[in-house]
Amino acid sequence: MKYELTAKDPGCDARLGKITTPHGTIRTPAFMPVGTQGTVKGALPEQVRSLGADIILGNTYHLYLRPGHQLIAALGGLHKFMNWQGPILTDSGGFQIYSLSKLRKIDDEGAVFQSHIDGSRHFLTPEKAVEIQQALGSDIMMCLDECIAYPADRKRAQEALARTAQWARRCRDAQTNREQALFGIVQGGFYPDLRRQGVEDLRAIGFDGYAVGGLSVGEPKEAMMETLSRTVPLLPEDAPRYLMGVGTPEDIVEGVFHGIDMFDCVMPTRSARNGLLFTNSGKVVIRNARYREDHAPIESGCDCYTCRNYSRAYLRHLYVSGEILAMVLNTIHNLRYYQRHMEGIREAVANGTFVKFRRDFLSREKNDGENAADNRDI
Amino acid sequence: MKYELTAKDPGCDARLGKITTPHGTIRTPAFMPVGTQGTVKGALPEQVRSLGADIILGNTYHLYLRPGHQLIAALGGLHKFMNWQGPILTDSGGFQIYSLSKLRKIDDEGAVFQSHIDGSRHFLTPEKAVEIQQALGSDIMMCLDECIAYPADRKRAQEALARTAQWARRCRDAQTNREQALFGIVQGGFYPDLRRQGVEDLRAIGFDGYAVGGLSVGEPKEAMMETLSRTVPLLPEDAPRYLMGVGTPEDIVEGVFHGIDMFDCVMPTRSARNGLLFTNSGKVVIRNARYREDHAPIESGCDCYTCRNYSRAYLRHLYVSGEILAMVLNTIHNLRYYQRHMEGIREAVANGTFVKFRRDFLSREKNDGENAADNRDI
Repeated sequence: MKYELTAKDPGCDARLGKITTPHGTIRTPAFMPVGTQGTVKGALPEQVRSLGADIILGNTYHLYLRPGHQLIAALGGLHKFMNWQGPILTDSGGFQIYSLSKLRKIDDEGAVFQSHIDGSRHFLTPEKAVEIQQALGSDIMMCLDECIAYPADRKRAQEALARTAQWARRCRDAQTNREQALFGIVQGGFYPDLRRQGVEDLRAIGFDGYAVGGLSVGEPKEAMMETLSRTVPLLPEDAPRYLMGVGTPEDIVEGVFHGIDMFDCVMPTRSARNGLLFTNSGKVVIRNARYREDHAPIESGCDCYTCRNYSRAYLRHLYVSGEILAMVLNTIHNLRYYQRHMEGIREAVANGTFVKFRRDFLSREKNDGENAADNRDI
Repeated sequence: MKYELTAKDPGCDARLGKITTPHGTIRTPAFMPVGTQGTVKGALPEQVRSLGADIILGNTYHLYLRPGHQLIAALGGLHKFMNWQGPILTDSGGFQIYSLSKLRKIDDEGAVFQSHIDGSRHFLTPEKAVEIQQALGSDIMMCLDECIAYPADRKRAQEALARTAQWARRCRDAQTNREQALFGIVQGGFYPDLRRQGVEDLRAIGFDGYAVGGLSVGEPKEAMMETLSRTVPLLPEDAPRYLMGVGTPEDIVEGVFHGIDMFDCVMPTRSARNGLLFTNSGKVVIRNARYREDHAPIESGCDCYTCRNYSRAYLRHLYVSGEILAMVLNTIHNLRYYQRHMEGIREAVANGTFVKFRRDFLSREKNDGENAADNRDI
């Protein structure tokens, strides 16, 4: 993997770059659609690509449990299995063990957990997390880290940080395939000195990229921004920076402002399936009666297949009728919205006008929030 | 609408033809995928088209109840509403009133029924059925007919037949837009003289095409073939013949053998959503454990997008994981299977070899049935 920093915004930490992987190039700042179970829910790989995504995310936890990483390896790896020819980043499974499974025991060796599917018992170690990701054949692997609840006291945060550092070292040592990149994850909760320690631990080992973990876990927005502003500047400039599990279009703008290069979130796809559509003039709750006879597309000027071919009235009809196509068409729009958002961001950074872009975007979001009546007249 | 008979098989009643409509040409024998609620479930219109469908079917009953025919008319008609630029045939709603709704009362005037969605009460007359279909703007409309249960005694069949004839006359009279074709429906149960009467009633009025209704309602296969063999030859040669709601690939072969030109059935799409896939060497129940590690496509040699890009192992994984893409990819394959089937049929009729085609197909189906173990090892 190669990271190239191509431009820096003069007014903030925003940066433009390119990551080269064995499966292609990623333009950063990048948003990665989430392909949890070997599919970006509701979209064909060719659609995901044509909507502007350079890279997608796969979930190690899910793929390990079903259909199993060895099966995927036997079938030629995750790219071939799911027919996605571009780069893939896989997470380590740590967050899903924490959030989805029944976590039975965690110690320095690893984590014992129960599958959320069938209750079967499994043991995940840093070595195993790398082994699974190597079997999947992703372009970018993530170290196993220990996630903590929010809020967490200092002692708990410190303990998890120390374990995350040990595990990062073990992940690096376990890696046998250097064609695949490996990213470290900075933990440390909301304690600035612990975050600093987290960065130092990882830099001492040396990774191909660095992720900021443990954010967007229920903390106030200010705490997230504060942590970003104190953590990101400590990261090496010549490696990509990834803000895990984030987020809203607004959070992405803030992340870029603080120097983040990569994002992932289920928000565009999950919202689409729930009939919540993103537009530059606020969110559209498509089931609303107000759209019953609405000739207009979801968003005027949007270049996506859905907006070019279908009215809100039709999409409302599909949604209230429970049709599969509702999810498919909504997913196409939301994925495209997110990628248009990233294109706008990259263009602003390239032009050195990201500070203005951010100001305009946030004030528009604020107005939309104040005017939003879309949930009322269902 | 124009029908052109282009070839007749020398060994049976099979025929090749072309129907020209305001939205394009239909190659017959034709299979029409069913787009019940303004969408062929699980497929984009462009996919349906590229899989080989010349025409789709829309359900008047469903579209009348939701979103309403007036709304669709206000939005530019059904073609524009659902983004399908090819021909559309709409049924009259008669069969759904009989099979889906609570039928409250039927008399010579029309049928009072309760919506299966919200229990609201509606009154459908022949005039109303035409009005709705004219509002939808379909290329081919169907007369309202009275459907009867199987088995039905002679008196009941006779009564429904007489009503169907009266209603056919009223539909023809109610039609104000002659750009849209109108087909009559032959009823008469399994009484050959009543079927003959049904044909005479309709021919006396004169329609653009003729449908055989009331088959595939639970009768033995022989009764269906017997009725077809006695009814179809009575229909005018210069108009298309449509066997409603039929059917399996085998039933289609038999229908063509007896001179039928058009078919529709939910079978390919509904089966796909249930993980049942059609192939030329028998059905594949994709959730079966035997496909867990199967590298092969659903059907070797199939030219569909799904078979070109995905293994059975992947499709099994998507299906057992409950992913939307399972339904989408399975639907693509089954729709393509049906259209490949029609292509094979048309080619055989064009070559004058349909009798051999039929013999080979039916003996293969029989063998598959005997060897089929696919439901056992789930």
